[in-house]
Amino acid sequence: MKILLDGMGGDHAPEVIVEGAVAATKELEKDVKIAIIGQEEIIAKELKKTGYTGDAIEIIHADEVITNHESPVKAIRTKKESTIVKGINLLKEGEVDVFISAGSTGAVLAGGLLILGRIKGVDRPALATIYPVIGKEPALLLDAGANAECKPKHLLEFGIMGSLYMEKVLGRTDPRVGLVNNGAEEGKGNALTKETYGLLKESNLNFVGNVEARDIPTGAADVIVTDGFTGNVIIKLSEGLGLTILREIKRKFTAGGVAKLGAALLKGKLYELKQDFDYTEYGGAPILGVRGAILKMHGSSDFYAVKQTILKAVPYVKENVVEKIAGSIGEDN
Amino acid sequence: MKILLDGMGGDHAPEVIVEGAVAATKELEKDVKIAIIGQEEIIAKELKKTGYTGDAIEIIHADEVITNHESPVKAIRTKKESTIVKGINLLKEGEVDVFISAGSTGAVLAGGLLILGRIKGVDRPALATIYPVIGKEPALLLDAGANAECKPKHLLEFGIMGSLYMEKVLGRTDPRVGLVNNGAEEGKGNALTKETYGLLKESNLNFVGNVEARDIPTGAADVIVTDGFTGNVIIKLSEGLGLTILREIKRKFTAGGVAKLGAALLKGKLYELKQDFDYTEYGGAPILGVRGAILKMHGSSDFYAVKQTILKAVPYVKENVVEKIAGSIGEDN
Repeated sequence: MKILLDGMGGDHAPEVIVEGAVAATKELEKDVKIAIIGQEEIIAKELKKTGYTGDAIEIIHADEVITNHESPVKAIRTKKESTIVKGINLLKEGEVDVFISAGSTGAVLAGGLLILGRIKGVDRPALATIYPVIGKEPALLLDAGANAECKPKHLLEFGIMGSLYMEKVLGRTDPRVGLVNNGAEEGKGNALTKETYGLLKESNLNFVGNVEARDIPTGAADVIVTDGFTGNVIIKLSEGLGLTILREIKRKFTAGGVAKLGAALLKGKLYELKQDFDYTEYGGAPILGVRGAILKMHGSSDFYAVKQTILKAVPYVKENVVEKIAGSIGEDN
Repeated sequence: MKILLDGMGGDHAPEVIVEGAVAATKELEKDVKIAIIGQEEIIAKELKKTGYTGDAIEIIHADEVITNHESPVKAIRTKKESTIVKGINLLKEGEVDVFISAGSTGAVLAGGLLILGRIKGVDRPALATIYPVIGKEPALLLDAGANAECKPKHLLEFGIMGSLYMEKVLGRTDPRVGLVNNGAEEGKGNALTKETYGLLKESNLNFVGNVEARDIPTGAADVIVTDGFTGNVIIKLSEGLGLTILREIKRKFTAGGVAKLGAALLKGKLYELKQDFDYTEYGGAPILGVRGAILKMHGSSDFYAVKQTILKAVPYVKENVVEKIAGSIGEDN
């Protein structure tokens, strides 16, 4: 198996990408190799810095980089020598088994759609994001933003694909699939969710019904199904609100003498709390429904997030999730 | 001016309703009277308990109560002697100037629509909710759930009505109106938000553009415009996530000896933090677009929330917000 990393994508590339790769080699089986794509000299220099001397990492040269500031579709069409275009082409040709990038979400999505194409039967590939649940295993939410406009059958596809990934890659048996809705009872919702409810109910999925937004953070379902507009709102609001609250806690708890003493005593607890929101342990976000395994990492990923995403890429490939999606969509759709 | 309170609605009725009314009398001008509608004996008994002896509070008898467990529309049509139906009828007939309830949201909404009807030119009355912003004045979000399915012109109406309420009742000059969207740039979004962007841009409102969900908690706009499905998700997710985090902080900070000592030192800070999320100071949620002033309180409201809602009802009536909406919708729509 060969895992391909975009060496130039993300806020802290190439350092954290290379460091994550080196860290991963210590935990990977021998038959798993890593390739890093990017400007060869730069990547080689970073790799040298880490002191790595093994043979599990190779460098593949790519001249160009796609930034967050350019039109994704245009960039994919014109920058043939970019890490993303060249990387996804290598995936398509079977030279590598999975492609991982912390670069532009739009470009990675567009690359998946335009270069790999959709799995037969999948109308709308989706971005599936790990959603942290305090004190429990995380949920998987999709679509996190690939499709602003959805039809009921697309949401059914999201349920099928998310359920497979949750089971095969994250190891949750018989994952509970929930539909984001504005009320818990059957019959609630807008036209989209009302019709989707029926489709999910009739499917082979372990559908647990509607999930109100207030119950998402406490783990009401393992796979949270929603359209890409609402999914984007849920992910971004959770990030924004979580950060705002943690920042306010820190500010309050470090203001004033007595509070400072208290905060010193609680330092470990505050750290723990921050860790609870850290879902990098569970790897990147798969783009489900395209003909190949792609994992998108957060732009701000550190070396640990990179390492964990590499480790999660292994079952993603080994379990043939892409092929299983093709099989299941045929059955259920 | 006469303010009518639903004496039987909410988790802690009638106690907190009566206590809130009594507390409000101390801060209201002399020409503002309060009426409480409900089962006369019960309300009178509660009022007696408070020791109130003034003449600013009267009781209006109503035999029935609409619960959260019945169909709102059916309840409004059949329970003519309920506090909500009788109360909104008194508002329609001009016997009172504003109706306040902590009862079933669906029933209060249905009552407003079926008994009062829509303001001419308003297609979709909306529920507008106060959204807390840490360290700043709160925002107003609408629609918070009255309309699961919306068209662009409905969202324009929400902007106009919300802006007026924000300015006239909550005292914010030239409120910034923002549109919830999946990206900050113009041109982002689904069909609904793309078209709405154009309408808001052409309007007389102080439109500040798209607001990404992550920026709502930090006060990116004073009036947050969105469809009722997304609005419901935003309000419920914020509640759920806020509560989950606060609960986790409390749990962590009270576990273990050293942490307990730290927590004792920080008790005041934790209380402050909880207060930051308490937006009851700003009163209940107006149902904007119906022909009369209605304020819906949270079911779990305490006496302070009831008192504050009564105080906010005064400018709602005095500033003729209902008439001003009628005027503005004609202009802008």
